[in-house]
Amino acid sequence: MQLHKRDVVDAATRILDTYGIADLTMRRLARELDVSPGALYWHFTNKQRLLGAVADRVLRPALVDPPAGWRAGITDVCEKFRDALLSHTDGAELVSASLAAGQSEAMAQILALLTAAAADAGVERENAELAARTVVYYVLGFTADEQSRLQWDAAGAQLPDEQSVLSTDPNRRFMFGLRLLIDGIAAHNRAEIELL
Amino acid sequence: MQLHKRDVVDAATRILDTYGIADLTMRRLARELDVSPGALYWHFTNKQRLLGAVADRVLRPALVDPPAGWRAGITDVCEKFRDALLSHTDGAELVSASLAAGQSEAMAQILALLTAAAADAGVERENAELAARTVVYYVLGFTADEQSRLQWDAAGAQLPDEQSVLSTDPNRRFMFGLRLLIDGIAAHNRAEIELL
Repeated sequence: MQLHKRDVVDAATRILDTYGIADLTMRRLARELDVSPGALYWHFTNKQRLLGAVADRVLRPALVDPPAGWRAGITDVCEKFRDALLSHTDGAELVSASLAAGQSEAMAQILALLTAAAADAGVERENAELAARTVVYYVLGFTADEQSRLQWDAAGAQLPDEQSVLSTDPNRRFMFGLRLLIDGIAAHNRAEIELL
Repeated sequence: MQLHKRDVVDAATRILDTYGIADLTMRRLARELDVSPGALYWHFTNKQRLLGAVADRVLRPALVDPPAGWRAGITDVCEKFRDALLSHTDGAELVSASLAAGQSEAMAQILALLTAAAADAGVERENAELAARTVVYYVLGFTADEQSRLQWDAAGAQLPDEQSVLSTDPNRRFMFGLRLLIDGIAAHNRAEIELL
């Protein structure tokens, strides 16, 4: 029976959701699909490419047209981005790894949406992508931290008292940091104008 | 011969620097020290605590009194924080894990310094720690990405072309995002005043 790329990504996503990123290896995946590792390498020449394809699957629900207006656009993209990461075990860790490896097409699209929003806000062309990356680092860092706590809670691990306070109202906490970044992008624009 | 806590952290840091975080296990560490795993658990009841102690060692050089003025303070703390992370293999990944587990005393001190700076900037008490965490998520996210690229470069891995452009002038790129956050913190304060 022919092995389709899509079946490989399906199986990899199942391993991720059930066991976490540490168990997502080419060997384990080949066993799960009952094929030889060579059959996998036909579709994915290395593990980075496989992780990139799984990251694309995780991020797909975040790829919708954002609303008009750069502030609303950044907010909407980031809320959907965080929701997508939280929907899969170790989602934030997986996407962070794919960002660094430059292997996720969906991550590139999210960066492009945020870059366009920063440009709309008046950030110069050569800095708009840096602004977009700053927002992405924040979303990934916040969500990785949030997800670790959720997964430890689910595993019944004891966290220091201070940590449980941090679990309260994560949406408000997420929006606070995002608002700082949006205000910073707006201020950057003002600062440039003041220099003219 | 008695096993001191400090010797355990020394050996764990050597394993981290030489082989990376994936090889930093209690079993491997016991072998390196030529002791039974039980002897390690006397000092560290679980792996999270061990990683926290190694994170404290990594971050120690960042724990110096910041200069006067909240903007200079945030900038100085974050530059030293990033330098400390880059000084050890997988430093950003290790400290991210320790932040989520709430096990690093040094990470708590860096958060306290940044919280005090945000409060000096005029951010309300209940939000100053959120502002500090936003900055920390950015520094960890940026540096984890930077460090992955550096380590892959060192390993001779091929990265997509776009990625090599991103390796140029990382200091300027780092400062750009930090400046957005600092401007956002300043703007937050202005926005509060305008509401009065």
